[in-house]
Amino acid sequence: MPATLIGNGYGKSAVRLVTVRRGPDVHELKDVTVAIHLEGDFLSAYTDGDNSQVLPTDTMKNTVYALAADHPIQEIEDFGLLLSDHFLRASPPAASARIEMTEHLWERLDPHAFRRAGGETRTAVVTRTRESVAVTAGIEDLVVMKTSKSAFEGFPRDRYTTLPETSDRLLATSVTATWKYAGSDLPFGDRWTEVRRRLLEAFMEHDSRSVQQTLYAMGEAALETADVEEIRLLSSTLGS
Amino acid sequence: MPATLIGNGYGKSAVRLVTVRRGPDVHELKDVTVAIHLEGDFLSAYTDGDNSQVLPTDTMKNTVYALAADHPIQEIEDFGLLLSDHFLRASPPAASARIEMTEHLWERLDPHAFRRAGGETRTAVVTRTRESVAVTAGIEDLVVMKTSKSAFEGFPRDRYTTLPETSDRLLATSVTATWKYAGSDLPFGDRWTEVRRRLLEAFMEHDSRSVQQTLYAMGEAALETADVEEIRLLSSTLGS
Amino acid sequence: MPATLIGNGYGKSAVRLVTVRRGPDVHELKDVTVAIHLEGDFLSAYTDGDNSQVLPTDTMKNTVYALAADHPIQEIEDFGLLLSDHFLRASPPAASARIEMTEHLWERLDPHAFRRAGGETRTAVVTRTRESVAVTAGIEDLVVMKTSKSAFEGFPRDRYTTLPETSDRLLATSVTATWKYAGSDLPFGDRWTEVRRRLLEAFMEHDSRSVQQTLYAMGEAALETADVEEIRLLSSTLGS
Amino acid sequence: MPATLIGNGYGKSAVRLVTVRRGPDVHELKDVTVAIHLEGDFLSAYTDGDNSQVLPTDTMKNTVYALAADHPIQEIEDFGLLLSDHFLRASPPAASARIEMTEHLWERLDPHAFRRAGGETRTAVVTRTRESVAVTAGIEDLVVMKTSKSAFEGFPRDRYTTLPETSDRLLATSVTATWKYAGSDLPFGDRWTEVRRRLLEAFMEHDSRSVQQTLYAMGEAALETADVEEIRLLSSTLGS
Repeated sequence: MPATLIGNGYGKSAVRLVTVRRGPDVHELKDVTVAIHLEGDFLSAYTDGDNSQVLPTDTMKNTVYALAADHPIQEIEDFGLLLSDHFLRASPPAASARIEMTEHLWERLDPHAFRRAGGETRTAVVTRTRESVAVTAGIEDLVVMKTSKSAFEGFPRDRYTTLPETSDRLLATSVTATWKYAGSDLPFGDRWTEVRRRLLEAFMEHDSRSVQQTLYAMGEAALETADVEEIRLLSSTLGS
Repeated sequence: MPATLIGNGYGKSAVRLVTVRRGPDVHELKDVTVAIHLEGDFLSAYTDGDNSQVLPTDTMKNTVYALAADHPIQEIEDFGLLLSDHFLRASPPAASARIEMTEHLWERLDPHAFRRAGGETRTAVVTRTRESVAVTAGIEDLVVMKTSKSAFEGFPRDRYTTLPETSDRLLATSVTATWKYAGSDLPFGDRWTEVRRRLLEAFMEHDSRSVQQTLYAMGEAALETADVEEIRLLSSTLGS
Repeated sequence: MPATLIGNGYGKSAVRLVTVRRGPDVHELKDVTVAIHLEGDFLSAYTDGDNSQVLPTDTMKNTVYALAADHPIQEIEDFGLLLSDHFLRASPPAASARIEMTEHLWERLDPHAFRRAGGETRTAVVTRTRESVAVTAGIEDLVVMKTSKSAFEGFPRDRYTTLPETSDRLLATSVTATWKYAGSDLPFGDRWTEVRRRLLEAFMEHDSRSVQQTLYAMGEAALETADVEEIRLLSSTLGS
Repeated sequence: MPATLIGNGYGKSAVRLVTVRRGPDVHELKDVTVAIHLEGDFLSAYTDGDNSQVLPTDTMKNTVYALAADHPIQEIEDFGLLLSDHFLRASPPAASARIEMTEHLWERLDPHAFRRAGGETRTAVVTRTRESVAVTAGIEDLVVMKTSKSAFEGFPRDRYTTLPETSDRLLATSVTATWKYAGSDLPFGDRWTEVRRRLLEAFMEHDSRSVQQTLYAMGEAALETADVEEIRLLSSTLGS
């Protein structure tokens, strides 16, 4: 048969990994997406359904988490070197291991809080009728994380509850805020900058007992800005 | 203070739920994304950090899975009615519960196999130099699922392996295939249609011992098509 | 210098092309995205800024439209062969031309109307308070096109108007519909199927004088369905 | 008829607008997406197909560009106020006009160059065989724009060429770079930071005669970094 079927490899993609190294004064955050691809002589698995040499992709995912726990990530290249070495040992038929990593960059806000670089936008809506005009403004997709001063305890438990109580968890959330101005002849740029600054400061400083409570504190802080009449905050929690 | 902070609700979005009802002859598949939103007097949670009335969003997610297991989904509206009733009971401060559902539609291929409606595209690449020309064609994002004849057993176990062996699992995957033609003056439309049909038939009929083995069988079937010299298949498994 | 800078090519991607071949009885629709990539000795352009051999990517885009007008697309592979031949002639330094095409598949509704395969979803929202319950349902992203019986004439003109009047244009739109049911104990699946069928039939049959008028006719038809109290249609026009 | 059809409005969304105000020393950049929605008594258009009161959405788009040219945007709220006022005058049946704006934020690099805030990621690929290991690194989606020192002239013209020559144009592009390291035991973080800095500096300083030439200059600059053996740059031009 002159025809050929190409593809002697397999792997696992989109393994998302967030790690925090907790130093005495400062926390270090890494947010990485990992893909693993093995190539080699897996032909018996493809043709006979013999899985005895097929390291499950689920095991690959578990391995990424386990090695990251044992060896906190500093540079993604070094972590990739470690993983590639491990997978060649763990999979005898593999001739090569390819590790692809994408690091999502976060900017430091303070020693224990971070803002995801980029993506955030400034929004505004003007609604005018024949009689009146209303101006609202907002921030979309302000992504923030705090690695200390965040607990979630004392919630009700029923038969479907499996979440453990915790006094120390990562709080990562994407915040969208919209607020209404008291007028239509205002220094809109200055106001927007001040609301944004107040939201971030409140997030950093808040001793969080729940996401809802932190959002409320952020909203209260933003309402201190002149000419801001009303504010709504929506939060989309990151992770599962 | 004339200013007000709006938002007396919270919830959980993007809960993805795939259920199969296994009848004696035919399997019924439902693929639904659910969002739950409760509104009511949650002010003490927001202001005092008192979580005693805050049903965790993690519990909401678990509840969706548990109720779907007990009451197989037929119409999403009926499932929404069930969920909304449950959450008003489970959360005393909630005045209202809003359940949003999006059903992703699958077309039946046979009693135990399905194709995700839509999204699939036909692709082609022509590469010409001053001396020669090569034509490849393909299918992108052909999403298929089988609810029987799918096992994954006999794989190697190491200390990072937690995956159980199974002789009966859902196999859902997005397949991208590209193949090379033997010439440049061919009935390209007919060939494409035949390759697509052969890929789907092989998927349906295959008694799968691994995703890799099924892909290989699909590729072998497609290579029976006239003028197809070579084929590559990439598979992106759905779910975690 | 041992270091090397790779990349001796350039091109244009994401050229979207929709063509209709109007037969006496039936219209044939093709919806294709094209990318062109030339490789060759473009080094003088890179190093000296000498553009005399750099066919502009804007010209590449114009060429795709012009050749499609002269040679109606039947199979994308044949169109790619034509384009690759043209670009090697038009660009003397090019050693090879690579044409990538993705065809977005449309299903025929009638001789002059089409539905974009896939992507459409079924939605539902249940809102329950302690006293009442409301059920709405919907369709998202129902993408349809008609190639006859579509005009847009008689609109107001001001100094910013450049759109010509036309009695024969493509009408392509993505429709999202949501409707409210009269009760909560209904055969929801049957109702949804009927609303969808009525929307599509009205779209096909309507002699359109504007998108708004066609949407209104679709909504009126859907309201004939039992237990449907109220309907909203949103339309997002495709193309610029 | 108890049933009702809701929706007495229409509009135009996704109008993308990039403006540059050229001061004597510094250029100011605004990048905004605008949506316009009119509500009012458009019923005759919907029921009778009478378009005499339907301002075309194409005219709405043209109006956004024309008003932005006459009134350079400083704050999006002020631009929305201007647009809403215009559209209520231009459309007598409209009772209200709603203008939604999203501003995509750019960071200043120098008086005439900008970087789009966010989205950029750091990537790495480690490929290990039983005998060797290779490390590459990269930046994805580094989006930059320069508003001076950018020309495109002297290119070949054929019958499909409509692009005018220009000695002064906006050059906006999304750059993805990948480079190969000379070893696997290197200070990877420092190297990445230096490559990124060199790419940005070369972009700012380059007197561009074409995108290709600027990319080449950026690549040459990056190759000055220690331990970088080889680099590839891909550029995806923004806009049509």
